[in-house]
Formats: sequence, C-alpha cells, structure tokens
Amino acid sequence: MTTRTEISKLGEFGLIEHLTQNMPLKNPQTLKGVGDDAAVLDYKDKQVLVTTDLLLEGVHFDLTYVPLKHLGYKSAVVNFSDIYAMNGQPKQITVSIGLSKRFSVEDMDELYSGIRLACDVYGVDLVGGDTSASMTGLTISITCIGEGEKGKVVYRSGAKETDLVCVSGDLGAAYMGLQLLEREKNVFNGEKDFTPDFSGKEYLLERQLKPEARKDIIASLAEAGILPTAMMDVSDGLSSELLHIAKDSHVGCRIYEERIPIDYQTAVMAEQFNMNLVTAALNGGEDYELLFTVALADYDKAAELKGVKIIGHITKPELGNYLVGRDGGEVELKAQGWNSLS
Amino acid sequence: MTTRTEISKLGEFGLIEHLTQNMPLKNPQTLKGVGDDAAVLDYKDKQVLVTTDLLLEGVHFDLTYVPLKHLGYKSAVVNFSDIYAMNGQPKQITVSIGLSKRFSVEDMDELYSGIRLACDVYGVDLVGGDTSASMTGLTISITCIGEGEKGKVVYRSGAKETDLVCVSGDLGAAYMGLQLLEREKNVFNGEKDFTPDFSGKEYLLERQLKPEARKDIIASLAEAGILPTAMMDVSDGLSSELLHIAKDSHVGCRIYEERIPIDYQTAVMAEQFNMNLVTAALNGGEDYELLFTVALADYDKAAELKGVKIIGHITKPELGNYLVGRDGGEVELKAQGWNSLS
Repeated sequence: MTTRTEISKLGEFGLIEHLTQNMPLKNPQTLKGVGDDAAVLDYKDKQVLVTTDLLLEGVHFDLTYVPLKHLGYKSAVVNFSDIYAMNGQPKQITVSIGLSKRFSVEDMDELYSGIRLACDVYGVDLVGGDTSASMTGLTISITCIGEGEKGKVVYRSGAKETDLVCVSGDLGAAYMGLQLLEREKNVFNGEKDFTPDFSGKEYLLERQLKPEARKDIIASLAEAGILPTAMMDVSDGLSSELLHIAKDSHVGCRIYEERIPIDYQTAVMAEQFNMNLVTAALNGGEDYELLFTVALADYDKAAELKGVKIIGHITKPELGNYLVGRDGGEVELKAQGWNSLS
Repeated sequence: MTTRTEISKLGEFGLIEHLTQNMPLKNPQTLKGVGDDAAVLDYKDKQVLVTTDLLLEGVHFDLTYVPLKHLGYKSAVVNFSDIYAMNGQPKQITVSIGLSKRFSVEDMDELYSGIRLACDVYGVDLVGGDTSASMTGLTISITCIGEGEKGKVVYRSGAKETDLVCVSGDLGAAYMGLQLLEREKNVFNGEKDFTPDFSGKEYLLERQLKPEARKDIIASLAEAGILPTAMMDVSDGLSSELLHIAKDSHVGCRIYEERIPIDYQTAVMAEQFNMNLVTAALNGGEDYELLFTVALADYDKAAELKGVKIIGHITKPELGNYLVGRDGGEVELKAQGWNSLS
C-alpha cells in the first residue's frame, strides 16, 4: 500500500521546505536560492535570459497517462529549451505550483523528483517559487533564468537572404506519441488494469513524455565555430516557428520535403493512423528541437554537424514561405501549430 | 452596451501581441522584451533578484468584488514589493495568464491596463509571458526581476542582538478591507444593482484592492544612509514575517503592542466587527509594508524616518519571540498568517 500524506499536514511553508530540501546549489551565479523574498543571482558581465511557462491540467497535460515525475521533468526541460534557443545556458528556475485536495505530499514528491532530475541533468538550480491551494487540478508555473554571452545571444530576427535553414533531431514523433496515448485512453476508457502494448513505439512515447532540450547541439555549434543568425526551439511545430523567424527577420524561406528529418516509428504510426506524415512533422509540435539559420559561408561546417539537417534556405521576403514537395510542387507554409485559445 | 470580443478571435499570439503593444521599454537593462524565446537583460555589475507569484481565482482573489484592473495592478505590485524587500529595484516582469471562455478580450484589456499602470508607476518593463486556455477561471503567474547592488542586498538572515525592529506605514487595514468586502458580498448576495455604502472606509478598501509597494521607504533608507540588517515585506502578517527573520537570523525579538502602527479606520472596523484589533494587525497580512531591522547605532536616523515606526528590538534566540502588551504582559508570537494549504 502506498502512503498518502495530506498536504495540509505540512502547510505551505512546510511543503516548500520539504520539496526543496537537499538541493545543493550548483552554479556560482546563484548567491541565494529558495528562502527569502527573492533569489539573488550574480551574472557579472554575462547577459541574463528569462523565459516563463504556465501549464494547466486538462489543457497542457492529462494526468490519465502522464506520470507526475515525467510531467515535472518535461515542465522544467521545455523552459531550458527556450534558453538554449537563445544560444544560452539555463542556470536557475523558479517553480510555482497550484494544487487541489486531490493531490498528496507523495504526489508532489513525484512531481518534484522529475523537476530535480531535470535540474541535475542540465546543471540548473531551483531558486524559488511557492505552492498554494487550487480549486481545480494542478497548475505549474516555471520561470527559467539563463546566461548568454554578449554578442552571442541569438534572436529570431537575424536570418538573412541565402542563409541555410537547419533543424536538429527529427520531427513529428512527440505528436505521434500524443496521438497514441490519446487513442489508448479512449479505447480502454474505464477498463481497469489494462496495460496497452506500446512495444515498437517506445521512441514516440519518450518524445512525448520525456523530451530533452538540445544542450548538445548548442555545444556542437560552439565547437564548430558556428554562430547561428537566428534560432528558435520547435514547440508549436516547424511551420509555425519558421514563420516566426521569417516575419521577425523580414525574409522568406524555402524548405524541402525530402530533407525534413522524420524517424521510422513516426512514419509507421502516421500510416497506421492514416495521417499525412509531412503535416504531422510540420505542425505536430512539442519536438523541442532547435531550428536555426546559418550563413551560407558556414555550409561546410553545418553539413558536418552531427544530428543536424539542412532543410532549406532563406529568401527575399517577397518570395514568401514555401515547402517544396518531392515532385517539385510548392505549398505555402501555414501556422497550424497548437493553440490552446483557438 | 459594452463590446465583447471572444479571445478565440485573436488566438494566443494575437492576444499577446494585442496586450503588449505600445509598451516601450523603459530600462537600459532590458535589451529584448516580449517576442522571442526568452527576454534578454543586461545587469552589468549589479546582482539580479528574482521573485515569483502564482494567483488563482477563488483562492487568492474573488472577482465578485475585485475589478480586473485592480487585480492586474495588485498582482504586479506585490511582486515589486518582494524586490524592494531585498533592498533592490524591480526592473522587469513576465506575466502568464490562464483564462477560461468566460473572459473576453476586453476583460484581458482591463487586467493588463492595471499591470501596465503598475509598470508605469514603478518604472518596470513587461518582458515576456504567455496566455493560454484554462478549464476554470483565471490564473495569473508573475515573475519579477530586479537589480540589487553588491553588498547592499538585504536578506532575512542578518538581524543581530540589540538591533531595532522597524515597520513602515500601518498594519491590518488590508485585512479589514477584505472583511468588509466579504461581508457586503454575503449580505447582498443575489441582489442586483446594489451599491454598498463604503464611505468613511475608503482607506481600508484601497489597502485591500490597490496596495502600493514601498519604493519610497527604500529611497528614504538610502538617503538616510541606513542599510537594514534584515528585511521582508509584510504579506502574511507581521507575526509570521517576524518569526521568519528570527528563525533565519537565529535571534529572538520583543515588539511592543503600543508601538504597532494602526490606522483609525482599521480600529473602527475592528470594533464594528467585534474583532481583536492587535490580532488583526499582527496576523491580517497583505499589508505590503516593509519590516526591517537596523543596528542600534542607527537609532537616531531610524527614529527620524518618515512613515517608519520602531516597534521593538532583537534579542538572544533563547529569549523567544514575544509581544509585550500595554499592561506589560508578554504573549508569544505565533504565525497565524494566511495559508491557502492549511
């Protein structure tokens, strides 16, 4: 039997103390973490990067099939991903939790064990936040602070004509993982003790439930001496992100269908679901890969980057934003990314 | 007739653009605000302060009597207050909003007009955040980033024996304002077009609905050449905050009932409600005044500070934490502060 400790036994301060104990600070930039009115950081001559994310139960996650530990891990990692997407290094996070009576101290331990693991893997300090009651469900708000070097922070707005468009890893797998989880949930709704067979689809589930941020790609770029001209992480889908870069950089782009990196499992699932594979890869979202542009002069270096594919190039703005199909036909890119408010 | 524009008409990116337009950046430390994966800040040789707050409808606020503009203002100001409480200056905030279909674009305009006003009054830049759908009600998550000077950031942990305990403004009024609003809500529940008579109680309502952060006190302290040894803002109630300082500084304290600053309207309301006035002042919370300790050598300077009262002194830890009554009797201080999880 598992133990259930009511949150009220610890109270707000008690719970925060309980959850944040034994988390020694890792970064010299963190002077003071949890336990005062504010955290105190020292970034010296570095630039400070700040990003924030609000995750609501029933909108951004479904606890029917998302384990709390995975949710904690993912909540932290998606914020780290935003800092890497600026060519920075995440250093600190604050975590605020709103939770209803449904949740116990053990549940929060699970959630925090995921957050803690992510912080350990990525070398990030948890420096603040709070917990409070919620009328309904679980709310997670995370803010991540990171470090960027002067002159090396990469915005969305720097892409120039003739630049190459690159993307790391592969696309569409997280979306297929979500479809798979949703299908199993619907098919076996109500049946207890049902264990769906996910064998051969592990990669899709991992991409959905335990995504990683591409710290390694940022390191590879630095090692190769490439400073991208523009960069974003792919959270809403490749199409949507490309359009952001095009708009903010006042350019157009052409990407090539045959060059879009897609994993074998993603392709198999798309066929099973009778879905258009390219649409899934372009608009699925939650890939947390890095989409970036590099100067044409860096072509040789970029072509050699492990885990990165050159998928197209930047054009004059009046040429628009297009996907070039295998048959040479062109389809205009549209932002069909996930939008909780539409 | 007022216009109602559905949020879905704008979508997530459209809404954020709509809400954050025409907000020119004010601070040289803000290199890039809204519109990329992360905000970019440059704090040069200053220390960076970070604080965060999660506000949930039905737990932290009641839209029956809190106007959205006031809610926006207060949500921002309580975060600024945490930065001042570190002897810092707030410079940037990020705002994340979760909202149900009940809310329109005009509602969000109201909320943001309050946030915007607070940012204008306190010289703070809005640099990021997002909006997303929520299954129920309104969720507001704000993170504030501020600047502290090396060696001048004030923690909770620096109070020393014989230090003086000081507090700004007066206490208990915001709590009385809340009681007043709750009473009117209960009495006239269901009656339409009822306008309660709040005349003579304006101060209490203002303290509850539109609190200010004590930027002025931080300026006065600097001008007087006083660096507090410990400081906090009074959000959970004087007792609770004093116990935090005592615990973190490994000291005890004595404060004097007759010296606790209380406004006339607060006293009148306490009598009407048949409540203990001192209890309300000690445990009411949401005062957003500054509680701080100064070295005994600064007595003369502290005594001359406008809007500040010396209410007691710091002792050895073994002497405990006590309120000395008008009759000389001593009552141990307990943290009965507001706790949403108890």
